[in-house]
Amino acid sequence: MPYAHKVRVKPNHSSKNGSLGELALLRTIRAQAARRSSSGLRLGIGDDCALLAARPGEELAVTTDLSIAGRHFRLDWHSAEVVGHRTLARGLSDLAAMGARPVAAFLSLGLPKELTVAHRGKAWVDGFFQGLQQLAAEYKVPLAGGDLAESPVALADIVLVGAVSAGKAMLRSGAKAGDSLYVTGSLGGAACGLERLADLAASRIFSSKKSGKDGARGSFSGCPIPKKLEVLLAAHLYPQPRIAQGLWLRKRGLASAALDLSDGLSTDLAHLCEESGVGAEVEALRLPLGPGATLDQALHGGEDYELLFTAPATARVPRSIAGVAITRIGRMVKARAGQPTITLVRENGREAVKGRGWEHFA
Amino acid sequence: MPYAHKVRVKPNHSSKNGSLGELALLRTIRAQAARRSSSGLRLGIGDDCALLAARPGEELAVTTDLSIAGRHFRLDWHSAEVVGHRTLARGLSDLAAMGARPVAAFLSLGLPKELTVAHRGKAWVDGFFQGLQQLAAEYKVPLAGGDLAESPVALADIVLVGAVSAGKAMLRSGAKAGDSLYVTGSLGGAACGLERLADLAASRIFSSKKSGKDGARGSFSGCPIPKKLEVLLAAHLYPQPRIAQGLWLRKRGLASAALDLSDGLSTDLAHLCEESGVGAEVEALRLPLGPGATLDQALHGGEDYELLFTAPATARVPRSIAGVAITRIGRMVKARAGQPTITLVRENGREAVKGRGWEHFA
Repeated sequence: MPYAHKVRVKPNHSSKNGSLGELALLRTIRAQAARRSSSGLRLGIGDDCALLAARPGEELAVTTDLSIAGRHFRLDWHSAEVVGHRTLARGLSDLAAMGARPVAAFLSLGLPKELTVAHRGKAWVDGFFQGLQQLAAEYKVPLAGGDLAESPVALADIVLVGAVSAGKAMLRSGAKAGDSLYVTGSLGGAACGLERLADLAASRIFSSKKSGKDGARGSFSGCPIPKKLEVLLAAHLYPQPRIAQGLWLRKRGLASAALDLSDGLSTDLAHLCEESGVGAEVEALRLPLGPGATLDQALHGGEDYELLFTAPATARVPRSIAGVAITRIGRMVKARAGQPTITLVRENGREAVKGRGWEHFA
Repeated sequence: MPYAHKVRVKPNHSSKNGSLGELALLRTIRAQAARRSSSGLRLGIGDDCALLAARPGEELAVTTDLSIAGRHFRLDWHSAEVVGHRTLARGLSDLAAMGARPVAAFLSLGLPKELTVAHRGKAWVDGFFQGLQQLAAEYKVPLAGGDLAESPVALADIVLVGAVSAGKAMLRSGAKAGDSLYVTGSLGGAACGLERLADLAASRIFSSKKSGKDGARGSFSGCPIPKKLEVLLAAHLYPQPRIAQGLWLRKRGLASAALDLSDGLSTDLAHLCEESGVGAEVEALRLPLGPGATLDQALHGGEDYELLFTAPATARVPRSIAGVAITRIGRMVKARAGQPTITLVRENGREAVKGRGWEHFA
């Protein structure tokens, strides 16, 4: 076949240059994935499709998230483990937002060949799966299938399938004027961490150092990150999907609307307002800032993967759910023509908040 | 945020350079997708996840297929419509192989910005969705979600979700020694078409011509393909997923095993043999060759997307299903150590067939 880089199958053999080869790599993934199972997964990797079953009275929630090197991560900034963790965390966070329990994950992975070649016994792709599988184990979600291809740029498309009681999923569209607005955890930590990472990249400290600790947790181009910086970077490098909090909220039926904060509060809250046909007032002093984060990062920084949700003013929302703080940050108001959708209430007055999240192709 | 190419959201506006912008593009996709619905889709594009429901007694089948420019298609060989059609056809074909009815499709699309910029009122991405949606309409499968990102290389990851009676999906693992081996349609046509396309690319006829018919059906870099060649290219450009045939076989419970021919008969039959623990004998003279195809292309050419299935020798398999010919091409035999998994039976003797399909990273 005349396509480039498509070659004869060599079953059961790595190629001479140390690359795993697609079939060998698939076998490794399949062996790892087989160790884990979930009640909803009937048939995993190895056939044309995986087979999933919801329990009676359940619907399945499906989400896909595409991560591309140079756009969503940088191979010179993020270790393979970090990329694997973040890839899966993005998908799990979407399930959390609907209040769904994870059933299975699917991964389409496109990689330059060099990322499949082992250095000192370990290839980049090994670290990637290590980071992904570690998080998958925490949430008991099996890797049930996917696709693998050689690609000029590293990319990972993660598909998550979850299950939720029919008609009970938390949507973006249920918020009403008068509802209170809540957020899990803290905001701006991921943006703050990313800024610190950019500073590190710009500094000579890291570009001049070499270390043998390839793929160490929080490594930066193979150099370990100083301990004191780890806490500032953790929110960016290892975001935690709020599955337990989403399940808790959905089971109690407390939330009138919910989504996860991937693009930043200003952008995501605007989505919630648009889908619900309401406006929002956010109180600046109530925003729970992540370690080191500024108000600007809390408002506009993306990738915190916290849950943003609304509940009737009379609802008894606890101060924490499954160990994560819940903070009331404002309230929903009627949408009025000519008025800003989102208003920030500060000590010295009110101002309109415009979405400043990310947009591709703009 | 310091990532490259991530910019401020500009809702409701195309950017100055004519690019659609992510949000505008998403709105267009959403509007198109909303026109189509399926019984299993409860909630489509617009929330954190789509919601799907199987009917009582059904399981859901899930498959993902990654297509990357330069690997699975070429922007200078394939029109946008062709890439859109082929992207969806790959996923639908996996559902066909299990005997599943399509419920919903999800698409993660990564594109260089220039493919979202309109030329003469139409962007590449418009043609892509046209090709994809035309096939989606034929099979009544709604686009229920996905992701969109700017990418240095054009890529599309398609996710198909189908439904199938619980425990009744056709698997690769059920073939038994003594079963007959069948194939739908004809073989080698896609490989033959691809070779013709490569010849066209190499010829000066096309590189020296210009035509205004951008995105015409079967166009080649904007140049229409000569009529007499269209039939030879159709199997490659517009493969038809065998959904109806898969459903028919699954409902009658005739097939003991099945898969779709994406990597080529020699490679895919080896997968079926491996999963079923059997060998196979293929009769060369019985292979239904596609228009212009050689025996070599029928054996080793990929992307025909026909169904390969086995059935007990006593099963009454018709000569055609839903208008597509069914051909018995051989039989399954006991797997014997030291013997080839697949044997080709020719007039003048027998020979071992080795998989010569595609493998990435090898």
